[in-house]
Amino acid sequence: MSKIRIGVVGYGNIGRGVEAAINQNPDTVLTAIFTRREPESIRPQTPGAAVEHVSQAPDYVNKIDVMILCGGSATDLPEQGPQFAALFNTIDSFDTHARIADYHGAVDAAAQAAGKTSIISVGWDPGLFSMMRMLSGVLLPEGKDYTFWGRGVSQGHSDAIRRVAGVKNGIQYTIPIETAVARVRTGETPEFTVREKHLRECFIVAREGADRAQIEIDIKTMPNYFADYDTVVHFISEEELQKNHSRMMHGGFVIRSGNTTEGNKHVIEFSLKLDSNPEFTANVLVAYARAALRMNREGQVGAKTVFDVPLAYLTSQTSLELMKELL
Amino acid sequence: MSKIRIGVVGYGNIGRGVEAAINQNPDTVLTAIFTRREPESIRPQTPGAAVEHVSQAPDYVNKIDVMILCGGSATDLPEQGPQFAALFNTIDSFDTHARIADYHGAVDAAAQAAGKTSIISVGWDPGLFSMMRMLSGVLLPEGKDYTFWGRGVSQGHSDAIRRVAGVKNGIQYTIPIETAVARVRTGETPEFTVREKHLRECFIVAREGADRAQIEIDIKTMPNYFADYDTVVHFISEEELQKNHSRMMHGGFVIRSGNTTEGNKHVIEFSLKLDSNPEFTANVLVAYARAALRMNREGQVGAKTVFDVPLAYLTSQTSLELMKELL
Repeated sequence: MSKIRIGVVGYGNIGRGVEAAINQNPDTVLTAIFTRREPESIRPQTPGAAVEHVSQAPDYVNKIDVMILCGGSATDLPEQGPQFAALFNTIDSFDTHARIADYHGAVDAAAQAAGKTSIISVGWDPGLFSMMRMLSGVLLPEGKDYTFWGRGVSQGHSDAIRRVAGVKNGIQYTIPIETAVARVRTGETPEFTVREKHLRECFIVAREGADRAQIEIDIKTMPNYFADYDTVVHFISEEELQKNHSRMMHGGFVIRSGNTTEGNKHVIEFSLKLDSNPEFTANVLVAYARAALRMNREGQVGAKTVFDVPLAYLTSQTSLELMKELL
Repeated sequence: MSKIRIGVVGYGNIGRGVEAAINQNPDTVLTAIFTRREPESIRPQTPGAAVEHVSQAPDYVNKIDVMILCGGSATDLPEQGPQFAALFNTIDSFDTHARIADYHGAVDAAAQAAGKTSIISVGWDPGLFSMMRMLSGVLLPEGKDYTFWGRGVSQGHSDAIRRVAGVKNGIQYTIPIETAVARVRTGETPEFTVREKHLRECFIVAREGADRAQIEIDIKTMPNYFADYDTVVHFISEEELQKNHSRMMHGGFVIRSGNTTEGNKHVIEFSLKLDSNPEFTANVLVAYARAALRMNREGQVGAKTVFDVPLAYLTSQTSLELMKELL
């Protein structure tokens, strides 16, 4: 059987993760990387993979089975999602929750018109965690679920602290509060404030001569990002930051508890502990690329989400193999 | 929208659990219970539900949308599965792993010929745990997974100890060994013997005058069931057994760890903690009943497994609701 020919749009952390994931999946091949940078500036790890300016993508309509869009949700995907869905089967990890229905509509229109299949908002949250919230909600209709994130690096919060006056560099970890997780695990269904669920921990490299006390105040009182949380600020050296805080670790928990009959309680938990958020996310994207191609070949066109994809479509194993080895 | 009309074949622990689950799912209704006992001996909780001898089932072909088969895998389902699949959409929890492919074939032939849809081997293992083994295997192709069961009541092992000479009554708990679970959770991939993964704990009510030392030896040396495990035997009174050991609790863990690139490790864990194994299993069966009907209406006939069902088919929520509320 011929390999699934994959294109990658954007060669940042996720794009490089997709390249690594393709190497772990022998039924896939990286055909080309598309970039807005000078193509010559990129040296892929994969022998034979082309590097092209993103404007050349239409030349690859017959050479690529699935295009994995690795851009950001703020500005890249709202434009690239519909644009690429008009030419290719696509996978993306769009995660701006408030705009997801609009984004779905725009991608769906383009994909339907072109007879292509796009699976949007793939990854672990949105993605795997969404599946677990949905599944556990169906299985325990009289219950309540909780999502905790971390311990992990939040890019948005790290960006926010780096914009504070006097901060040279920094990173922010989101940390689930263990006593809250423990309560939920026992089947309790408390109402938490945001402060009771997550702690925020910042490692800051201050500029020379900066007022550290003021930096700490500016971070801890920052609306939306920190003001509603307990925040811990540590000042460290640039060397320590590079040495101990360069891994993009993340993870979290989806926990739902509920009763069937009175007195009979059940707890469903799904958790991830990830050394590299972008590399794991990339592995999810590649698995769903397999599904997008299969759905397209079956005539299931338009924009889809993880809820629409049978798990069997994520693998190259046959139904009989799945039944014998995994059921 | 009209409710999904459900029939239940067999009114034991699972059948009663299905009845309770239907009460939690307002888009479903229990139409009839089918039994091999005297129908008059059964008093369902549900007003309006009929109770019929199982031989009357064919009369309900136009009155029931999905039949949930609650019989056992040893003798009931091999016969009932194909028989009911020829008349109804069906759900069952067939769990004799070695015979699953044959069972699938027999049900598939009957369902295909009748234009019906049967989802087989639904529950939590096989079922949810199978889904998690499959999903985590696809996401971390270079890794290894472990399934631990318990702490929970094993019916098979409880039946086995009750057959030992001198035993009046008893129950067996399967207990995952915590140090083994902890090692796997850190991302280690050890090779375990069966003894290293699970402990077996028995609570025995001895007959008057029975030789307790001999009972303990007979249990601990029983081939297949206990000989390969560390087993703990407690002797208790019938009163204590009834008071403290009548709950059919169960649960377990599916844990997979693997690397993406060298040095970047990831751990995926799914766990269940269930006060009532049959009631939770029943909730899974009812969710898949919804899917069987929808697949049948779309023309997806024949025998299916949990791998073939998109998660969206388990719920009555629309795609837009799922996207807005759960993605």
